Amino acid sequence: MRNFIKEAFTDFFCEYETPRQVLVRNPRVGIACRILQLGVLAYIIGWVFMYEKGYQVEDTAISSVFTKMKGIAYTESNGTERLWDVADYVFPDQGVSSFVVMTNFIMTLGQSQGKCPELADGSNSCTSDADCKKGQYKRTGNGRMTGTCINKTSCEILSWCPVQDDRVIPKPPLLAAAENFTLFIKNSISFPEFGVVRSNLVESVDSTYLKTCLFDPNKQPLCPIFKLGDIVSLSGFKFSEIAQVGGSIGILIEWECNLDLRIEKCIPKYSFQGLYGNNSQASVGYNFRTAKYYTEDRIQKRTLMKVFGVYIEIIVNGKARKFDIIPTLTAIGSGVGIFGVATVVCDVVLLHLVPKKDFYKTLKFKSTPEQEQETDSVEMDQTKEPTQ
Amino acid sequence: MRNFIKEAFTDFFCEYETPRQVLVRNPRVGIACRILQLGVLAYIIGWVFMYEKGYQVEDTAISSVFTKMKGIAYTESNGTERLWDVADYVFPDQGVSSFVVMTNFIMTLGQSQGKCPELADGSNSCTSDADCKKGQYKRTGNGRMTGTCINKTSCEILSWCPVQDDRVIPKPPLLAAAENFTLFIKNSISFPEFGVVRSNLVESVDSTYLKTCLFDPNKQPLCPIFKLGDIVSLSGFKFSEIAQVGGSIGILIEWECNLDLRIEKCIPKYSFQGLYGNNSQASVGYNFRTAKYYTEDRIQKRTLMKVFGVYIEIIVNGKARKFDIIPTLTAIGSGVGIFGVATVVCDVVLLHLVPKKDFYKTLKFKSTPEQEQETDSVEMDQTKEPTQ
Amino acid sequence: MRNFIKEAFTDFFCEYETPRQVLVRNPRVGIACRILQLGVLAYIIGWVFMYEKGYQVEDTAISSVFTKMKGIAYTESNGTERLWDVADYVFPDQGVSSFVVMTNFIMTLGQSQGKCPELADGSNSCTSDADCKKGQYKRTGNGRMTGTCINKTSCEILSWCPVQDDRVIPKPPLLAAAENFTLFIKNSISFPEFGVVRSNLVESVDSTYLKTCLFDPNKQPLCPIFKLGDIVSLSGFKFSEIAQVGGSIGILIEWECNLDLRIEKCIPKYSFQGLYGNNSQASVGYNFRTAKYYTEDRIQKRTLMKVFGVYIEIIVNGKARKFDIIPTLTAIGSGVGIFGVATVVCDVVLLHLVPKKDFYKTLKFKSTPEQEQETDSVEMDQTKEPTQ
Repeated sequence: MRNFIKEAFTDFFCEYETPRQVLVRNPRVGIACRILQLGVLAYIIGWVFMYEKGYQVEDTAISSVFTKMKGIAYTESNGTERLWDVADYVFPDQGVSSFVVMTNFIMTLGQSQGKCPELADGSNSCTSDADCKKGQYKRTGNGRMTGTCINKTSCEILSWCPVQDDRVIPKPPLLAAAENFTLFIKNSISFPEFGVVRSNLVESVDSTYLKTCLFDPNKQPLCPIFKLGDIVSLSGFKFSEIAQVGGSIGILIEWECNLDLRIEKCIPKYSFQGLYGNNSQASVGYNFRTAKYYTEDRIQKRTLMKVFGVYIEIIVNGKARKFDIIPTLTAIGSGVGIFGVATVVCDVVLLHLVPKKDFYKTLKFKSTPEQEQETDSVEMDQTKEPTQ
Repeated sequence: MRNFIKEAFTDFFCEYETPRQVLVRNPRVGIACRILQLGVLAYIIGWVFMYEKGYQVEDTAISSVFTKMKGIAYTESNGTERLWDVADYVFPDQGVSSFVVMTNFIMTLGQSQGKCPELADGSNSCTSDADCKKGQYKRTGNGRMTGTCINKTSCEILSWCPVQDDRVIPKPPLLAAAENFTLFIKNSISFPEFGVVRSNLVESVDSTYLKTCLFDPNKQPLCPIFKLGDIVSLSGFKFSEIAQVGGSIGILIEWECNLDLRIEKCIPKYSFQGLYGNNSQASVGYNFRTAKYYTEDRIQKRTLMKVFGVYIEIIVNGKARKFDIIPTLTAIGSGVGIFGVATVVCDVVLLHLVPKKDFYKTLKFKSTPEQEQETDSVEMDQTKEPTQ
Repeated sequence: MRNFIKEAFTDFFCEYETPRQVLVRNPRVGIACRILQLGVLAYIIGWVFMYEKGYQVEDTAISSVFTKMKGIAYTESNGTERLWDVADYVFPDQGVSSFVVMTNFIMTLGQSQGKCPELADGSNSCTSDADCKKGQYKRTGNGRMTGTCINKTSCEILSWCPVQDDRVIPKPPLLAAAENFTLFIKNSISFPEFGVVRSNLVESVDSTYLKTCLFDPNKQPLCPIFKLGDIVSLSGFKFSEIAQVGGSIGILIEWECNLDLRIEKCIPKYSFQGLYGNNSQASVGYNFRTAKYYTEDRIQKRTLMKVFGVYIEIIVNGKARKFDIIPTLTAIGSGVGIFGVATVVCDVVLLHLVPKKDFYKTLKFKSTPEQEQETDSVEMDQTKEPTQ
């Protein structure tokens, strides 16, 4: 028994199977088939390996972003001069990846809780007290109706009074100087699978360069300091328009790193696009209300601001690729499989479409006898073959 | 030599190899094998291509979200009427994708820095000054102990005074009207690989529709305006409960776009789920403290609010698929490989389990002689074959 | 005709093709080939299936994070004692996944709009009014120049006055007590493809454990309560350094869930890393300006704070894997394909490098006659074979 196993083992290791093949000498089928096979080979090498880099694995970056705005704006209204710095015009303060730079506003000073007439725009008009049901809210209104119609014009409401009148948006925008504000972006990405950490302050961006540079898509594509006016125009908006009514802009930082090359070649690409449009048509318009609360003469008051501004969202899309044996072998394996498809296609032509198809069939196929009782004789014939 | 190359070249192009095969006529093995092959074929076509769409590549969306709450709430406590608008009850103001809608609160007015007794709950009690070590902090305390035990009840502390008493949470919630607040969501996604940009304001959602619509999972599944009460109940909470103690809700916007179809079919699907639970059991409870600072009589004071509310996080999960030649051919290649597996399985049956296995072996295999010295005679025999 | 189809159908189902193969008995080539085949088999089973888990599909988590800081700090400057609680030192308040814990600050009390001299640091010096062009801004300045040079030292500007002097950063940091602040993190992830929801409050983290536990990478790796000092030191910073000038830290929560195992094994792993460095060298420095506005004697004033602190960003990287038939069969299919490669390689050796290569060629290949006119005679010969 042991001997038998040993023999089988030796047999197994001293021989190997290789398919028997027919070399079909038919120029037409041959050329067609070779071209097909070369096509498959070209596809595997050219497309899968060179174009799509099928020999690499991909990892998505984990990213963090820090931002800092700089710049000062000056306004003058009714003889009151006012200066706006970062703490005044950026919301929120902390330098996160999405924030608003105020470019225009409607300010209502000294609101306090009380009763006052509703804003006299069309949707809130009344002719008698019956139009102002006590305790009700109008969908377009700013407060709770007291039941009184004032001067046959608008309902009296309980609200923060006076009500903010936001019917006219200042034009030109009050903080038009925002065009010259600068934005500094610090972006750090890490590829956990590959153990690589990169920052957008790449090798060529040192502290000396940072002091003077300003982003320019062609001349200074790596400078992480952006003029707000440039961001707006590069995203396809007009600054004068967006500054008045507000708008949303995405700053896309794209990292496409081939880690088989030097790490210095792994650099960010900045692009800009208007957000919230449909079918690549960006729409303007962005505002929100914010209030500053204070106490005056023991009464709680607030300054309500309707802020129009540029909402900036920094979106990081980081991908790195590196050689890996698994996708390489999977691609090769699939390639060999597709090679088999080429042979199958050629066989279909050879066995069904060529005039001498029956001849080729006899070459390619060897049939066992159809009836089982014929077995004996065939077996006898067959056994001759090995000693042929 | 050149002639030789030319000839080899012609040979190569005028012929092709195709494996020689045995047509095994054995009904039992044949049927089993055909069924196996048909199964593989059905799997490749049905599952890989039709169900899993293995002929497409997938891209993940880059998304940005803008939100806007609307609604007014009225409270009355101790005869003081008060109206709450968006600037009062939404944190933060700017319309970002995660925010809190206040539904209940504990307000402590006019806190200033000073010395006052600690909150007299069980964990801060004292019987003598020895229990209140000067300069120490209690883990459950609100300030720095001065070393005095007041009225044998609680330690005196340096803190914002008076200390906020948050032992009783108002019930019913003070801003129960929040149930009728509405939330408008603007969501824009882009698939950078396919160059497609979409907004949740799809073709059927125009400005007329927006003015009147209200989201309903069955009747108006595309309307991007949501009632807060609906959001809460659709995520499986009771509004009265969550409004009192707060809670976290995720609004999931799912995009499953097949870009081989018309772009109009690429629409969002909204779903709602309670967050922070375990094993799909969501738990209520969400609060934070926020302070409004002001100066009164040259003393810095603050109004401390413990805010209970609905924390909403909008999560976008966008995926698009499009036909691509690479995954198609990879799937086909793998399929051909698996076809090979079917043949291997059939061969195992044929060569080891069928009674006439030795006969089939002689058909399938042709052995070269075992001893190398026998080579000559065999070679002689073999050379006859091509001219056979 | 119908009979013919039926017969073809029966034929198709009662037979199957299997390639004819040569069993090459050549110890050298045989051993080489077997080793190659075993290598491929080991690769498929060991690497693809066991190491890379090629039989599973992967899904990325949708995650939401809630945070809560706890702790109290005490400062004393110029005899004024002050206590800082969460509402004072965390920005923003709402417990989002990225926030700042203030550890140091420069406070400028009572700023109001007016005219005052610019900060007298080197970059803003002047010798005469000509150096201070009216209406201009200096890049390093804090306001709009009025055209006057005060005391031949610095330009007068319109600004929030007095100008904040941030030339000296307090050392030691004012809120050094921040080292003992604790951070509680609630993280919930869901894998939409698998319908699984998990929270970082896993089975072993119950409410009793939460009351006393403190994260320790070795002893208590699942406790979701972190000491700020530990976070800083685990990310490779010195607390005294980062507390003075600020810094950015990423808390990475990694979920690697194998859903073929019990769900209890799906637990988070916390790690800490300094952000914004390059080549894994983290750099310190983080600050922002924030203002608190109030009205005093009918004049709008503000308290400007330059806040230095630890910016914490919680990054969740969740991945789950589960058995799926598609990748399993794709891996098998590719494996069979690669098996074919092994045979091709052996064939190259056999047919080109072995002395008796011509002999093996005649075994493996059967040629059809080169000239088409020879067909007849060959066909005659060939037709004998099936009845051989």
